[in-house]
Amino acid sequence: MKRVRQLLLISSSKVHGHEYLQHTRKEIESFCNSNQILRILFVPYAAKDHDAYTEKVATALRGFGYETTGIHTYGDKSEAIKNAQCIFVGGGNTFLLLKTLYELNLVELIRERVTNGDLHYMGSSAGTNVATKSIKTTNDMPIVFPPTFDAIGLVPFNINPHYLDADPNNKHQGETREDRLKEFHEQNVTPVLGLREGTALLVDGDRAQLVGEFNGRLFRQNEKPEEIQPNTDLSFLLQWTD
Amino acid sequence: MKRVRQLLLISSSKVHGHEYLQHTRKEIESFCNSNQILRILFVPYAAKDHDAYTEKVATALRGFGYETTGIHTYGDKSEAIKNAQCIFVGGGNTFLLLKTLYELNLVELIRERVTNGDLHYMGSSAGTNVATKSIKTTNDMPIVFPPTFDAIGLVPFNINPHYLDADPNNKHQGETREDRLKEFHEQNVTPVLGLREGTALLVDGDRAQLVGEFNGRLFRQNEKPEEIQPNTDLSFLLQWTD
Repeated sequence: MKRVRQLLLISSSKVHGHEYLQHTRKEIESFCNSNQILRILFVPYAAKDHDAYTEKVATALRGFGYETTGIHTYGDKSEAIKNAQCIFVGGGNTFLLLKTLYELNLVELIRERVTNGDLHYMGSSAGTNVATKSIKTTNDMPIVFPPTFDAIGLVPFNINPHYLDADPNNKHQGETREDRLKEFHEQNVTPVLGLREGTALLVDGDRAQLVGEFNGRLFRQNEKPEEIQPNTDLSFLLQWTD
Repeated sequence: MKRVRQLLLISSSKVHGHEYLQHTRKEIESFCNSNQILRILFVPYAAKDHDAYTEKVATALRGFGYETTGIHTYGDKSEAIKNAQCIFVGGGNTFLLLKTLYELNLVELIRERVTNGDLHYMGSSAGTNVATKSIKTTNDMPIVFPPTFDAIGLVPFNINPHYLDADPNNKHQGETREDRLKEFHEQNVTPVLGLREGTALLVDGDRAQLVGEFNGRLFRQNEKPEEIQPNTDLSFLLQWTD
């Protein structure tokens, strides 16, 4: 287990044409093997039914060879985090997830342990949003009110998971994803990495890299969005300060 | 001017194939004529550039015969609200709009004056969201943190503007709008009226009616979503209490 920050931030648990988590099996196995991880603590708080959600994820991860338990089954959640080698924070609703993590006093604990290299972090979708600076670039509906939009802050920038290109044939007049991220940058200076489905960000200490089959898209205030090729070194983003 | 609550809550300012606000000209004119409204106070706080946004809306509304000024041009915004016969709250980002209304101490003032029938309210998109019970069913990105998701509360239920049916051919794995509203109802009991683009809700005192060219779609906790035909009486929704 390397004693520096280790993150695998996945855009989505599902990709069209693949079974649940199968599209990212290679990245999960590589992440776990290089960190000698055998057991994973799953965090199901982005969904309502914790048992059913944990069973679904555990089934997929057991298929890859990892024993998986749900944090909700532990009486003392902080102890569960302290004893874990690696957590996987699943997708669902980002607001519900962040609110629950604050209610359980887990935000600071996870930040400390991951930053120190004592806990490895995998997240998908909402679980990726909460790992970043803030949840201000989630796509989710604000169904519950969290105490703040500030998130765990394992990286100093934001991510937009499920990043979606505009469809020129779409007649719907709602904002495109790019419109929304432009609005974000009218109010915030933080860079945003758009992760298309089928991509992820891998962080090893001070190094960050886009992984997966597709390009990422990087949005910075007052700059044109930039296409990022797979395997591009994105370590410079880890140096960002607002 | 009728001395009861008068609202026109529009799904979107733009509809494919129509110029800005033109698709809803009939509803706006009917609303203004029946209430003898000649001047409109525009609230541009859902967007960043208040002057440009006001000019765009004022141009459209002047074309319908209504003099329109932006609230941001008044030194005392509360006085502007107190002197207005009718406000139009424009779309953009719902979080930015609600945060600004709270910062300017306008939420309670608008609620009181509209409820008393002293001020008539037209809203579109984000301007419709903030008129309802809460902004928890907005589609917007949470780019700024408001003090609460509780909104002006001119009606006791929620609206989802720009309501969008799922596209069965879409390969994107993000939640559909219906998925998101189901998640809302896992955490909240409040009914949600989905307003497709090209529709609006008209409220006259204790009567409410769907207007426009298309169906609405009503979502209630633990019930199947219900298609609502144009001109359907929705007054029962005004009796809702959480």
